[in-house]
Amino acid sequence: AVHGARKMEDYGRFLALLASSLLFGFVSVILSLVWVFHYREGLSWDGSAAEFNWHPVLIITGFVFIQGIAIIVYRLPWTWKCSKLLMKFIHAGLNTIAMILAIVSMVAVFDFHNAKNIPNMYSLHSWIGLTAVIFYSLQLFSGFAVFLLPFAPVRLRAALMPIHVYSGLTIFATVIATALMGITEKLIFALQNPAYSASPPEATFVNCLGLLLVIFGSLILWMASRPHWKRPPAENAKILRPIGATPEGTEVESTMTNSSNADKSDLRSNTEVARKQNIKFDDAGQRSTM
Amino acid sequence: AVHGARKMEDYGRFLALLASSLLFGFVSVILSLVWVFHYREGLSWDGSAAEFNWHPVLIITGFVFIQGIAIIVYRLPWTWKCSKLLMKFIHAGLNTIAMILAIVSMVAVFDFHNAKNIPNMYSLHSWIGLTAVIFYSLQLFSGFAVFLLPFAPVRLRAALMPIHVYSGLTIFATVIATALMGITEKLIFALQNPAYSASPPEATFVNCLGLLLVIFGSLILWMASRPHWKRPPAENAKILRPIGATPEGTEVESTMTNSSNADKSDLRSNTEVARKQNIKFDDAGQRSTM
Repeated sequence: AVHGARKMEDYGRFLALLASSLLFGFVSVILSLVWVFHYREGLSWDGSAAEFNWHPVLIITGFVFIQGIAIIVYRLPWTWKCSKLLMKFIHAGLNTIAMILAIVSMVAVFDFHNAKNIPNMYSLHSWIGLTAVIFYSLQLFSGFAVFLLPFAPVRLRAALMPIHVYSGLTIFATVIATALMGITEKLIFALQNPAYSASPPEATFVNCLGLLLVIFGSLILWMASRPHWKRPPAENAKILRPIGATPEGTEVESTMTNSSNADKSDLRSNTEVARKQNIKFDDAGQRSTM
Repeated sequence: AVHGARKMEDYGRFLALLASSLLFGFVSVILSLVWVFHYREGLSWDGSAAEFNWHPVLIITGFVFIQGIAIIVYRLPWTWKCSKLLMKFIHAGLNTIAMILAIVSMVAVFDFHNAKNIPNMYSLHSWIGLTAVIFYSLQLFSGFAVFLLPFAPVRLRAALMPIHVYSGLTIFATVIATALMGITEKLIFALQNPAYSASPPEATFVNCLGLLLVIFGSLILWMASRPHWKRPPAENAKILRPIGATPEGTEVESTMTNSSNADKSDLRSNTEVARKQNIKFDDAGQRSTM
């Protein structure tokens, strides 16, 4: 009963964090729209500043909010009865949407720059932003090839999973850092009279948007890195090997936080390390096959 | 023998990453000095732009490089025979130095702004930077009170350790993001003829410095988040309790990556879960007492 109460309390804590991050993410998207419609030129696709405005809106919607949700989609407890394959499609699908929006938002900037004869790719924002988009594409294609297509052997999947998780979280953090640089650039260039340094309402408003992005990112990274909030391994997964076949020294942890929830929930009542090793390996296999 | 060879290979990989991060961190400090001495007004403390220049130099030296080293100091294998208490003093000491340098670097900016009648605290850079310094101070004081002073009970230490690790890594990433915003601001304001958008040599040079900071941060976060590179728990720690006394449901993992190295190295040859639980708890106790 005490154990159950603890579990409910922990579940409540997860829901509160999830609700907070959805709120912060959603409000960020709304604020980006208020920024471009109330303070700026609105949205259009005509080479004007209104075309540029697609850039912050699509980056915050796709590359920050949707990418953040894609990261924690395996953590949602009510999806744990869905097949892992379905969840992988949702994870890959959300990341694909995020990538498309990020690419369209870059096209908007290049188009705007070319129409106004502003050089492309001179700023640190553009260097790191383009690097992030390239790494994000590599991450998406390699994730698709290794974890979704049925060809990669389990050992390869298990070895690449910690790198996939690390890269994903690092790219996500880098994208938010790049958005903050972009906000800084835009406020300096767009606010002239009064200048950014005079703190007109638009400056304060968009600074708050920047703070919201940092809070959203911090919440997502917290939820993604708690080991006990991971999707539990399937007890009845197909790949079960004798102990001798367990690849010793192979990185079987599937995330930065590794498979300790298996230790705690499934193994507490069990006295055989043999079984533990099977489940650990099963965990890696299951996480990368179904 | 195969196991030993794997261990050596893994040790070599750690050393290569450590050497790379030291190199990237050290080169970043050098580039910040080249920036202010070759391209800018040098360093002085007279309210001029040369006083401002302390800001990037001290932030990159202290708040990025030294903080990064402080984060991974427990990972250095040749320190594992030193007492945990000594390593805690080194960790706390490096972080204290980093905080002092960060505060001095902020004083330099406020001084410069006041001398030139430039408003303070109007930019997103300043908002997030000051927030990061405040959280860093809270982290340092709470870490001192909970993990260094001998008063906090083991359960409190074990419960707070994952939060300490998460906050530390998140603040570190936020500091790098803030440095990138600062570089963006400074290049836009300082480069007028030719402008930042004309890509003069200084612009390209400092953009490269920004890239180095991102690579340094990524390397530190990779090293800090590999479970098998953690300092191993002491087998002979003082606090060992009967299984019944193990606080069930307590967060005994001491980092984001939890104590899986204990699982792999110490438990593979062991058949009792009882012993495992003792070691796990021992791990939390040891990590937070000595």
